[in-house]
Amino acid sequence: MESLETTASHAFAESDRAAVYRAIHTRRDVRSEFLPQPVDDAMLARLLLAAHHAPSVGFMQPWNFMVIRSMAVKRAVHQRFQRANEEARALFPDHKRDIYSSLKLQGILDAPINLAITCDRSRSGPVVLGRTHMPSMDLYSSVCAVQNLWLAARAEGLGVGWVSIFHEAALQEALGIPPAIVPIAYLCIGHVSHFDNQPALEKIGWLPRLPLEDLVYLDQWGNTDGASHQTLLAQLGAVQAAYEAAR
Amino acid sequence: MESLETTASHAFAESDRAAVYRAIHTRRDVRSEFLPQPVDDAMLARLLLAAHHAPSVGFMQPWNFMVIRSMAVKRAVHQRFQRANEEARALFPDHKRDIYSSLKLQGILDAPINLAITCDRSRSGPVVLGRTHMPSMDLYSSVCAVQNLWLAARAEGLGVGWVSIFHEAALQEALGIPPAIVPIAYLCIGHVSHFDNQPALEKIGWLPRLPLEDLVYLDQWGNTDGASHQTLLAQLGAVQAAYEAAR
Repeated sequence: MESLETTASHAFAESDRAAVYRAIHTRRDVRSEFLPQPVDDAMLARLLLAAHHAPSVGFMQPWNFMVIRSMAVKRAVHQRFQRANEEARALFPDHKRDIYSSLKLQGILDAPINLAITCDRSRSGPVVLGRTHMPSMDLYSSVCAVQNLWLAARAEGLGVGWVSIFHEAALQEALGIPPAIVPIAYLCIGHVSHFDNQPALEKIGWLPRLPLEDLVYLDQWGNTDGASHQTLLAQLGAVQAAYEAAR
Repeated sequence: MESLETTASHAFAESDRAAVYRAIHTRRDVRSEFLPQPVDDAMLARLLLAAHHAPSVGFMQPWNFMVIRSMAVKRAVHQRFQRANEEARALFPDHKRDIYSSLKLQGILDAPINLAITCDRSRSGPVVLGRTHMPSMDLYSSVCAVQNLWLAARAEGLGVGWVSIFHEAALQEALGIPPAIVPIAYLCIGHVSHFDNQPALEKIGWLPRLPLEDLVYLDQWGNTDGASHQTLLAQLGAVQAAYEAAR
């Protein structure tokens, strides 16, 4: 029993645990709901500190944070989005192209803060602990910084939208980013009128939420046999029912 | 004033906001502190649901979750880690190689749950909204799932360690993962004796925490001029001082 008590002591209190799950489950990719109110600098600083405390491979901290406030720079970025978006639109089959055209996919000019998060792959020298066999690990570290910031923003009541419809070189050019630095995410950040109850692409029927049960395997790819797997599936059902009931 | 009230209503209450930041700032990459206690299935189910609610490009949800409980499979994975780790060790310069050798870099055999998170790049067909110009966006979506799970685990009192010292093909072989499916993260999950106060690699002096101020630019790469940037730097200082004082 003593070890169980030790274990329990590292868990957050119930209400704090619920707050973390609330950030995770009510986070949205915001495109249309930005308000013009400025973002407080202390709030932005807390978001950046949260991003800076993401995990990074070999503790290399490969990220930079480019805060974009200039309307001229936002316009330059927006033009590059529009060009890429025309190209992307043409690739969809007819029945999806009309829906695609009707979607607002970015809030570049609406959001008071735009933020580019990058990855400097040479940050701590050529050999990085944990990157030698999986060379993308440094890029993934910068992605973890994005997700930390996104969840912190939700807790602050700020919306975040990740815009990925750019040619990498065009974005580098608009922001003066050297060719060796990888742009990971271009984020629009601001206060919002509301947070949708579900992801926008789910809401409009672009794609359905996949059943979580179908995505979980035991020990080997594709394996769903085994008593422990059935127990887990039952719990997945219960946890999802509780989640749906609370929405 | 009315719009400010509307704005404020989306922010979490102060204690809930603090809980989200606590998860972000006290999350650790755990390698040595795993306890043998089993992980409750309901807890694991909550973690998987949190991962499943990560953002994904075009709502494609490209992830699968492989729960590894079999000691035989863990041993097979551990052997592949050992082989890759010998190769990695040899790449470090002399003065770092001894430190590297002394580090425990994984808890594969110690953690009751191992979890592989993958990316199926063909999940929703060849054309994915938001991936046409940045082809790595689907991989990044699976990374966001990792970070969601990691923060949820911290709130549950569970430690998580991300092991990346594998040849991709060797990991695919040990887990029966098809060649077209990308292994993104191999995670060790379990209860822990304690969470360190700072990242292990920072603690032992492998690399220092970078000053956040040096990583933030305004409008263009490398630019630190401008009154708004000075104001933000002052806030970054204040936020970091508050963070350090609270540790």
